[in-house]
Amino acid sequence: MDKITLGAMPYMSVMPTLLVGANVKGKANYMTAAWATVACMAPPMVCVAINKTRYTAKGIDENQTFSLNVPSAKDVVETDFCGIVSGANEDKSKVYTSFYGRVKTAPMAEECPVNIECRLFKSVDCGSHLLYIGEVVEIHADRACVADKKPDTVKTDPIVYAQSAYWQVGKPAGKAFSIGKEYKKK
Amino acid sequence: MDKITLGAMPYMSVMPTLLVGANVKGKANYMTAAWATVACMAPPMVCVAINKTRYTAKGIDENQTFSLNVPSAKDVVETDFCGIVSGANEDKSKVYTSFYGRVKTAPMAEECPVNIECRLFKSVDCGSHLLYIGEVVEIHADRACVADKKPDTVKTDPIVYAQSAYWQVGKPAGKAFSIGKEYKKK
Repeated sequence: MDKITLGAMPYMSVMPTLLVGANVKGKANYMTAAWATVACMAPPMVCVAINKTRYTAKGIDENQTFSLNVPSAKDVVETDFCGIVSGANEDKSKVYTSFYGRVKTAPMAEECPVNIECRLFKSVDCGSHLLYIGEVVEIHADRACVADKKPDTVKTDPIVYAQSAYWQVGKPAGKAFSIGKEYKKK
Repeated sequence: MDKITLGAMPYMSVMPTLLVGANVKGKANYMTAAWATVACMAPPMVCVAINKTRYTAKGIDENQTFSLNVPSAKDVVETDFCGIVSGANEDKSKVYTSFYGRVKTAPMAEECPVNIECRLFKSVDCGSHLLYIGEVVEIHADRACVADKKPDTVKTDPIVYAQSAYWQVGKPAGKAFSIGKEYKKK
């Protein structure tokens, strides 16, 4: 073993690249985020960490709703743009074509192949960031990106975020709850 | 737009594949998990959702510490094995060589190139799952997988989890806070 210590830092191996949709002052806004995951199976929940000072935080606090939109790798320029520019300084409502679902106040981006519509369950104050936990109300998806009633990874071509860079999903490395059965044979 | 609704489900585009390390009844245990991300920048925090009935949950509740270990794609069989078998039924302490860091009670897997050592900050009851939020106490990493004092994605070769399958990280798709500057040129 040749381990070294790197200090305490907000590291994660790989993350999703998403656009957090929120209405702020009645207008759609999209913010790039990667600090997100599933938070619960039943009821289905997701969570996303957002800096308290962000414009998007105001919108979620105001409406108690938000969306997580999954962009495709082909739209990486628009995706990153929404992480560079703040809605406080620039109107980002026209970067995507917005549509609304069941909760009415969570804008979703048509151009993103998958959209997760959420109602806020709880926000947890962690320090610089609030961890917004949302109950999933509905998953919207492009018909062409769905297989077996679920979003298909290859068709969706989602963007992986790691080490301050975007990546595509690569080669399959095994089936979950399956390839591990080979372990005992060793 | 040709969107369809898929119902409410615990979906996320891509997730990290990790091993949650926890001492349970004084013995190291490792559980495969993918529902994890960064929760806060300052102080640095990560979170992971774990089913309340899991053996690992007992260990975190008992010690108020845990680790998130990043396996390489070459070790996908061991990784998946730890998600198939419960520590309640089988001793998983020998699947990896454990070492301990600053918090003393969070076992970490030597074979994993990156290890995130955590002290429990808060657990949030979301329903079937508890969302464990941990303050990052230290990041341990294989010297060979570090570049610029951070874990290097290509050298680490972490496993992406999506659609109940494991994947490798693929081609670079752009630099964050950079490629989006091209947007205005359109």
